Amino acid sequence: MANVLLLHPGKMGSSVANALIQAGHEVFWVSQGRSNQTRERAEELGLCDVTDLSSALGKSEFVISVCPPEYAGSLAEEVIERGYEGTYVDANAVSPATSLAMGDLVGENYVDGGIIGPPAWNVGSTRIYLSGPRAANIAALFEGTLLDSFVIEGEIGAASALKMCYAAYTKGSSALLLGVRALAERMGVTDSLISEWAISQRGLEERSRNTAYSTSQKAWRFAGEMREIAATYSAAGLPAGFHEAAAELFERMKGFKDRDPATIDELTAELLRGKKSLD
Amino acid sequence: MANVLLLHPGKMGSSVANALIQAGHEVFWVSQGRSNQTRERAEELGLCDVTDLSSALGKSEFVISVCPPEYAGSLAEEVIERGYEGTYVDANAVSPATSLAMGDLVGENYVDGGIIGPPAWNVGSTRIYLSGPRAANIAALFEGTLLDSFVIEGEIGAASALKMCYAAYTKGSSALLLGVRALAERMGVTDSLISEWAISQRGLEERSRNTAYSTSQKAWRFAGEMREIAATYSAAGLPAGFHEAAAELFERMKGFKDRDPATIDELTAELLRGKKSLD
Repeated sequence: MANVLLLHPGKMGSSVANALIQAGHEVFWVSQGRSNQTRERAEELGLCDVTDLSSALGKSEFVISVCPPEYAGSLAEEVIERGYEGTYVDANAVSPATSLAMGDLVGENYVDGGIIGPPAWNVGSTRIYLSGPRAANIAALFEGTLLDSFVIEGEIGAASALKMCYAAYTKGSSALLLGVRALAERMGVTDSLISEWAISQRGLEERSRNTAYSTSQKAWRFAGEMREIAATYSAAGLPAGFHEAAAELFERMKGFKDRDPATIDELTAELLRGKKSLD
Repeated sequence: MANVLLLHPGKMGSSVANALIQAGHEVFWVSQGRSNQTRERAEELGLCDVTDLSSALGKSEFVISVCPPEYAGSLAEEVIERGYEGTYVDANAVSPATSLAMGDLVGENYVDGGIIGPPAWNVGSTRIYLSGPRAANIAALFEGTLLDSFVIEGEIGAASALKMCYAAYTKGSSALLLGVRALAERMGVTDSLISEWAISQRGLEERSRNTAYSTSQKAWRFAGEMREIAATYSAAGLPAGFHEAAAELFERMKGFKDRDPATIDELTAELLRGKKSLD
């Protein structure tokens, strides 16, 4: 059994922590500067509170980072600045290049990871992919838990590349669909589009409504991920525009963060708000 | 029964001409400068060959333009330069702004159109949408034919707007999916992506293969359409990047025009050809 520090137990991170506890590991977290909501969630799950990062690192053989992608690099820096020499897993939605840079910083104990699926509260719903020389050690930590773990072949960056490719289509096509609804609304052809979809694209209208409902509250943290994906495309010599546009659309949806799930009409209005009209 | 000039009977235009003939109209076409393949197709369908544009216009109460979007404007100009005063229908995949500009050129006899679906050789497969004061006259020409016609409410530009919104998702999501396959290939994670899709995105791998097969030969004429869609987004105050990226990807596929349908592997190789590697 191992001692693991989980930075930071948000919606996804909590489920990762829960999986580790389920497997019998001791899971630490750093409560300093976190919200009351996070604190309650951590207590309920049985995470062990260590008030500051330095003492938490002193107790942990493994650190797993689960955070919005724009904070992944600085989180790794904070840990390394404190002289940490254990295994560091970045499980965030970052580009292979971002992951490689963290790998350079951390050294041979770095593991590249990517999580696919919703927070892991159900059997078979969620997978953590891991790459790099220490990947198998991390995969073993999750054996028999709700979070399925897979080592993927390839150097540091392979797990991140898989996450980028996966989210490129799922979140990219969601953004595309919501943008189409906004365009139709601006052009005054929403009813005609819905009628045409009913003939030739069955299910798409319902999917656009469901996407608005399920995406609106999470959009605030998708913008950074879309930028990492755009950077991945550019580095691969492929056009980055899909995900630059997706980032912009998700950014326009940030106001839904702490509100009820949005209807498609509320969402298209927000996407079009304050933008120049067609005239 | 009416005399209609169809410019130009390619794959889609031939089926539009066929629908008109089916309804008992006389359909002219201009053979000057067209390929032997087009000539054979036109003869077979029973189109009436008028060798030059001016004499064709002299005989026709209606002109219907069916061509790649980048030629739509110059085709309208050619017709108007010859003093044509009948009804002119642009049925192409152009932005509302492009259509409005043609409307200004043509005058009150301009009809804005957009065709949705494959060439109209089967019942219920294909629809022509029409907008503007003369729209109902054109819809009537197609009554009882294989091409279903609909007048959509709104000014000139509404039918084009519908076509843009429709193709924005269908062709946009195809380009997105093909781009994802190319990215995975460049990153060396194709097998992992396909395994993950088999778990959580059932059907997507097959869809990507089918999309390669069905899109490769047509991609050469999608790039212009994607640019019209991008312009429509910009004018609406929405990000245009999705369709700028789609235009670039379809452009990279131009070499498949006169070849056999491409496999996904051939297609991703072409998308990545000559582009800078990740290293």
